Amino acid sequence: MSRWLEKKESEFNHALKSRDVKKMRALFNKVPTVDLAEFADKVDDPKDLTFIFKVVPSELTADFFTELNDDTQEALLKIFSDAQLVELINKSYTDDIVDFLEDMPANLVTRAIKFVPKERREAVNKLLNYKEDTAASIMTTEYFEFHTDVTVEDAMKVIREKGKTKETIYTIFLRDDKRNLVGTVDLDDLIFANPKQTLDEIKNKEFLYTRADTDQEEVAQKFKKYDLHALAVVNKEQKLVGVITFDDIMDVMEKETSEDIALQSGVVPLKDEYMETKPLRMALKCVPWLIVLIIIGVFSELVLSKFQEGLRVIPALVFFIPVLMDTGGNAGGQTCGLIIRALALKEFEVKDFWKVVWKEIKTALLIGVFVGVLAFGVFMIEFSIPGLIEVAGKTLTIQNKLVISTIVALALFSAIVISKFVACALPFLAVKLKKDPALTSQPFVTTIVDVCSLLIYFGIFMIFYLNGFFVNLI
Amino acid sequence: MSRWLEKKESEFNHALKSRDVKKMRALFNKVPTVDLAEFADKVDDPKDLTFIFKVVPSELTADFFTELNDDTQEALLKIFSDAQLVELINKSYTDDIVDFLEDMPANLVTRAIKFVPKERREAVNKLLNYKEDTAASIMTTEYFEFHTDVTVEDAMKVIREKGKTKETIYTIFLRDDKRNLVGTVDLDDLIFANPKQTLDEIKNKEFLYTRADTDQEEVAQKFKKYDLHALAVVNKEQKLVGVITFDDIMDVMEKETSEDIALQSGVVPLKDEYMETKPLRMALKCVPWLIVLIIIGVFSELVLSKFQEGLRVIPALVFFIPVLMDTGGNAGGQTCGLIIRALALKEFEVKDFWKVVWKEIKTALLIGVFVGVLAFGVFMIEFSIPGLIEVAGKTLTIQNKLVISTIVALALFSAIVISKFVACALPFLAVKLKKDPALTSQPFVTTIVDVCSLLIYFGIFMIFYLNGFFVNLI
Repeated sequence: MSRWLEKKESEFNHALKSRDVKKMRALFNKVPTVDLAEFADKVDDPKDLTFIFKVVPSELTADFFTELNDDTQEALLKIFSDAQLVELINKSYTDDIVDFLEDMPANLVTRAIKFVPKERREAVNKLLNYKEDTAASIMTTEYFEFHTDVTVEDAMKVIREKGKTKETIYTIFLRDDKRNLVGTVDLDDLIFANPKQTLDEIKNKEFLYTRADTDQEEVAQKFKKYDLHALAVVNKEQKLVGVITFDDIMDVMEKETSEDIALQSGVVPLKDEYMETKPLRMALKCVPWLIVLIIIGVFSELVLSKFQEGLRVIPALVFFIPVLMDTGGNAGGQTCGLIIRALALKEFEVKDFWKVVWKEIKTALLIGVFVGVLAFGVFMIEFSIPGLIEVAGKTLTIQNKLVISTIVALALFSAIVISKFVACALPFLAVKLKKDPALTSQPFVTTIVDVCSLLIYFGIFMIFYLNGFFVNLI
Repeated sequence: MSRWLEKKESEFNHALKSRDVKKMRALFNKVPTVDLAEFADKVDDPKDLTFIFKVVPSELTADFFTELNDDTQEALLKIFSDAQLVELINKSYTDDIVDFLEDMPANLVTRAIKFVPKERREAVNKLLNYKEDTAASIMTTEYFEFHTDVTVEDAMKVIREKGKTKETIYTIFLRDDKRNLVGTVDLDDLIFANPKQTLDEIKNKEFLYTRADTDQEEVAQKFKKYDLHALAVVNKEQKLVGVITFDDIMDVMEKETSEDIALQSGVVPLKDEYMETKPLRMALKCVPWLIVLIIIGVFSELVLSKFQEGLRVIPALVFFIPVLMDTGGNAGGQTCGLIIRALALKEFEVKDFWKVVWKEIKTALLIGVFVGVLAFGVFMIEFSIPGLIEVAGKTLTIQNKLVISTIVALALFSAIVISKFVACALPFLAVKLKKDPALTSQPFVTTIVDVCSLLIYFGIFMIFYLNGFFVNLI
């Protein structure tokens, strides 16, 4: 919550409970609409909500409603009179109507659509049917489109008259005789231009657009790279069907990132903010991965049960299982995090797979050698501290200590190389299978790598053991 | 690389090698400047670079230079003549000069600063000295500031005349007689307004600004929340010192997110893009956490060596160590991911600590019960499959199987609750200590939780063992 609102909350609540319209209006005047909405989201009583909605200055009601969360919007829509619904719809931009209808129960949508004027109803229905997370799903249909021959003067006149009903006037779009999209003009260039010039003469050299079915994450990348205010959305016939504005893109960037982070942490992405998600729902988002892991965990149980003979002969091998598994998991998690992020930012593409693998392997070898040598040293120091690590009361011989440290160090080296390879390959595999790479989360990589690390660990042990490197074993 | 550039790359290279200015210019005309810069970044030979720079249309040189990466900028600055340097500086926005000087060696900075006109030199020096990652470090000093009494007509006249030298004209800033910042006007409101109105009459109801020393991540949140084009930066005396524009904010959002993801994956954030980071450097970014973990790992080695008597009596206990540790680590990783993201997005603040902890504990209890019960079932099934899990050739009695499954299930339950608590508390602790919460990465949490989980595991075992729950042990 904003600091303003925090200071004013008790005043707000007081005005609300005493139905003090004047005081409420005075408070409203000082606070941005988005903060008012945040305040209203906390109100549960429908009567209180209706009162707040009535007090909001009439020119802000549409903005205010758009900023409310789904639950509050639903509560209000349910208690709105027909007149209120009509007013709200008339004042809202088409894409905002679509945004709030998208998450409402079907009966509310049907009722609301009835009140959308015929000429906009088609646009609303079309937008409602676009697939989630595509460019089309976040576009607006309120923008300026002019013929290339229109003069700056005439364009400015139209913008002055009708600009207030458009969601963006900062970029305007140009079409040719065939109604194909052929360019864009920025508002500042309109202002700097000679009034008699045609729009064609001052249009931007760069001409960017996106297709309606492009993923919104890709659209966000384009905005960031080219510092765009707005981007045209075209259909297959190269006709302009809508426009995406930068403010919607900031929301996309944040939402997509939150989803990626949740997935990579092994959580099904939350629909609401953290504090709005109830514990039971949160638990349901966390449980799926944990269950998968318990089940995959059967394999590590199997490996350990098969190698118990080795563990009986050299009990000290057990002590290093946690550090081996953590190192493998963490080394994989590092690669996973970097690769998934770089894929999301389009720093490389699927076709660069071998380049990336080769880079990761070189990196992994370097890390493996470094960590292996260091770990060997750490283990030898541990062994040399009397009473720190002992096996069932008897002291290990120097040679056995050296051999154990070597085995663990080699296992660490292998675990790092393998886990970095797995962690690097899985996200690419996901993209190949048309899945979100973020699904190949660290938990998943960790569990796969665990089994590999244990197998390698005991494999290396067997080589040393069968070749008689251990001495004086009882 | 953009698809355009990919198609044109061989043509570019050919024109470059044959020094074909005409062909090069023709190609340049069709490609956005940012893609040209991407192409130039791949060129190593200084002579080639000089040629490219000369071919870039003179009105785009400043833009082009700004988009180059650090290494290419440095290479060019080294070979620039004084005249070229002067031209570049005169054409660049002050904040762009600062951006490219920031990462240059001191001798190049000194040489370049000499050529900055006196009236801008102060601004450059000031910006160079602002702390990294603050609002001031990303602000520009080229914007419009008018007195509140100025009329719309007069303001538009000034904007038409001088707007081209300003980085943003989409938001203009208002000061009072004392030169204090008192409000903002959006360009569209200027266009819609009556020419005789004063700026004071049409200024935005909402008046937002930020302090020069505010963290850039916080600034990005403000942009997103209020859909801003530009935001004023003020000093302690409430005087306007600069303006931040939305395009710089998109870069901040991306950079900060990449840093958070790297930190949470246990990697020191990369300075360059993934593909530009050499394996050795990458290894150095990955090694620190791995080393820390190997050293913290000593504790899990200690715990296991102290409890080897238990492992000798019931060797099957070893089999469940991986699944126990993975579950604890992953449960903690989930909480870590969600909490750090929510803190970054200011969904809650440090003072909400107890609310968040309470929520996590309730969630953890639910998950713990669910996973514990399920795991108990999985283990009993595993035990019941002949030959799957056996201990040194002999079969466990039903009672012992039940007791072992119960011990592991209880340990899983405790590991989930404890790790969710630790993972929730550490990020808050980091904020309290004025550190980035993302530093409390999953690797760190995992390793701490490992030790706790092992202690609990053996604790629970000892309770069952000492109370005689195991039967017929040899």
